[in-house]
Amino acid sequence: MLASTLIVKKREGGELSDSEIRFLIDGFCEGNVADYQMSALAMAICLRGMTEREITTLTMAMLESGERLPRTDRGKPRVDKHSTGGLGDKVSLILAPLLAVCDVDVPMVSGRGLGLTGGTLDKLEAIEGFRTDFSSEEATQLLDQVGAFIISASDKIAPADRRLYALRDVTGTVESIALITASILSKKLSASLDALVMDVKCGSGAFMPTLEQAEKLSRSIVSVGVAAGMPTQAMITDMDQPLGETIGNAIEVNESLEVLQGKPGVVRDLTVALCANLLVQVGTEATSESANARLERALDDGSAMERFEALVHAQSGKLAGPLPLAKPHVINAKRAGFVERVDCPAIGEAVVAMGGGRRMKGDQLNHQVGIRTHCRVGAKVEQGDPLLTVYCDSAADYAELLAEAVVVVDQPVSERPLIVKRFQ
Amino acid sequence: MLASTLIVKKREGGELSDSEIRFLIDGFCEGNVADYQMSALAMAICLRGMTEREITTLTMAMLESGERLPRTDRGKPRVDKHSTGGLGDKVSLILAPLLAVCDVDVPMVSGRGLGLTGGTLDKLEAIEGFRTDFSSEEATQLLDQVGAFIISASDKIAPADRRLYALRDVTGTVESIALITASILSKKLSASLDALVMDVKCGSGAFMPTLEQAEKLSRSIVSVGVAAGMPTQAMITDMDQPLGETIGNAIEVNESLEVLQGKPGVVRDLTVALCANLLVQVGTEATSESANARLERALDDGSAMERFEALVHAQSGKLAGPLPLAKPHVINAKRAGFVERVDCPAIGEAVVAMGGGRRMKGDQLNHQVGIRTHCRVGAKVEQGDPLLTVYCDSAADYAELLAEAVVVVDQPVSERPLIVKRFQ
Repeated sequence: MLASTLIVKKREGGELSDSEIRFLIDGFCEGNVADYQMSALAMAICLRGMTEREITTLTMAMLESGERLPRTDRGKPRVDKHSTGGLGDKVSLILAPLLAVCDVDVPMVSGRGLGLTGGTLDKLEAIEGFRTDFSSEEATQLLDQVGAFIISASDKIAPADRRLYALRDVTGTVESIALITASILSKKLSASLDALVMDVKCGSGAFMPTLEQAEKLSRSIVSVGVAAGMPTQAMITDMDQPLGETIGNAIEVNESLEVLQGKPGVVRDLTVALCANLLVQVGTEATSESANARLERALDDGSAMERFEALVHAQSGKLAGPLPLAKPHVINAKRAGFVERVDCPAIGEAVVAMGGGRRMKGDQLNHQVGIRTHCRVGAKVEQGDPLLTVYCDSAADYAELLAEAVVVVDQPVSERPLIVKRFQ
Repeated sequence: MLASTLIVKKREGGELSDSEIRFLIDGFCEGNVADYQMSALAMAICLRGMTEREITTLTMAMLESGERLPRTDRGKPRVDKHSTGGLGDKVSLILAPLLAVCDVDVPMVSGRGLGLTGGTLDKLEAIEGFRTDFSSEEATQLLDQVGAFIISASDKIAPADRRLYALRDVTGTVESIALITASILSKKLSASLDALVMDVKCGSGAFMPTLEQAEKLSRSIVSVGVAAGMPTQAMITDMDQPLGETIGNAIEVNESLEVLQGKPGVVRDLTVALCANLLVQVGTEATSESANARLERALDDGSAMERFEALVHAQSGKLAGPLPLAKPHVINAKRAGFVERVDCPAIGEAVVAMGGGRRMKGDQLNHQVGIRTHCRVGAKVEQGDPLLTVYCDSAADYAELLAEAVVVVDQPVSERPLIVKRFQ
């Protein structure tokens, strides 16, 4: 077999066989298929696509390039949620301890932010002392102790995906349903899950701006996840405005604490919906209704909050109430009316500009900067009402970027639905 | 500018600006654009194509990555022919000295064979002592002395093309009209030509099997050549059967000597047509008719032969009559009838198998092996007539490969036209 012949086959729209895909991925890991061959293949896949069978084989080959988290004798189902990322998405911080309280294990391997989208690990590291690097043995202990962990991926998990992703990042081959599916699922499969729920964000603040693309990715992930032996469902959720009220690192930990202490709103609603999906998938609860009731109770009675504190403590974090933030500066409404738009790109760009996000890998973060939004699309506002509170040392620097971030119009505006579509 | 952003632009079918293309090629030469980025770009170009302007800019950028053969005071037009390659194509060996006799300079930079297609340099190296590596200064002297040379490309000519071609060869990105055009023309432009004629082969023995593809390449080369300031015309010529009677290295030199000594046939006809095109393009002759007459005369009166001997001598070759060949073995017709097909892939494969061609770069050649065909498509044959003479030590090894190489049928078959189409 010659790599170039297989690349030509995909270039011409052909379907690669299982042994051809394994030849390419194994060769890539062993150094017999060069980076320049893999990037040409990735581009051909971007433009020609892959069948469900091809993606499943690619996923399994990347999974098998690395280690899997061993199953233990705890007798509890293992579940996880993965989000394609969006502005203000702090769901993982609440979901992991909340599910652990409901007698399922949540071995969550998370990432860091790049560009406008924040990363769960970055948010948690706003907590003093919080560690994210644990060995496979240590991670198993965390699961025994807390029933959940939120850690970074080790070099040993799906190394083929790690190398391929680094290559795709610099060769214009990120945007491929096939490659995104295989990248996500090869890592999730390594945790030996009993169920996965995928939160596919859709809108101006998301990686998938159109519903059509979000649907394609959802269908691909569900069908390949199932084909690879892992029960997988997906929801498309709105990311045309930030999720919840806060965007930043420490500030999103603070909002998570509020939700864990019973605050209502979209963050609670989405977290409960995703958790309920998982509890029903693994049979811990028979119906969404009973799952919802159990989850609401765990948020209201403080048990989820207690488990979050246990998770932080187990991962060496020191948490004593809300985290400190930079100086607040309020932006008020210049007119009365209805909120038509809360501009994700403008708000995300402002947070990155303040130092709350990364432009380049390895950029240092300022955890204390951030933005709180005071209204969602559809809200009625009076002149002078606060629209945004900006937490940073010199808000004037971002005044221009944020002046039009919340658009107020005369005529009433409908609220946006949070959950757009479900794939089971 | 970020390479990955430009790759995405091409992936999405966008048109790259001149400065973007130069950024990529200059970056590739300087090491700021990596091989894996260039191969992803090449794949995007394969699948999305390029406009004439983009190809012209790419051609010029690759040309300017290297040196050009300086113009001299000889006051003679400079011309060249380039062929996409095919079985039995020995036209260059005759064309270069023939044109030199007609008062035009022919600075020909040629290549080696790979796969079924032979290379002009390989054929000439069947001549004892024949040298192909000359510096730019030495090449200029050869032109002064003989009016023509046939040498290998130095590292200093279009190094960007050389590196890109090596990359395309192993990344499944050879088959792109845009990249083929830029590769050919960047090298031809480096010779500072006054006119180029392109011989685009079409058929089962050619790189472009269909007329549609051959037409696309012809139009691309003519329009980009002209846009780059080099008068360029093209002919599509038949390669559904071998060109002329011989396939191999020494044996093709011998057929060239026969043509230079006045032998009629398709090799002579095609060579004269290509030469006449160039003489009219540069105005040395006013019409095809007068050009043809002059060229026929130079072949018949021995002056072209004399110039070929001068060229061989100047390039250190020792030529004293036809070159020695391996042992001949004749394959006869098993039945009477008409020749329907002379199978290029089978004959080419047999020559490679005998050691007359390369499977891999760097393979050593056996110059003395080869095949002579005794009939062309449309010819009438009797049972027992010779169809092929195979020159090799053990012809039995290739009997199976060649048994069906010449297909004889009952009903009469039309001859195939040699020149299919002209692009001016």
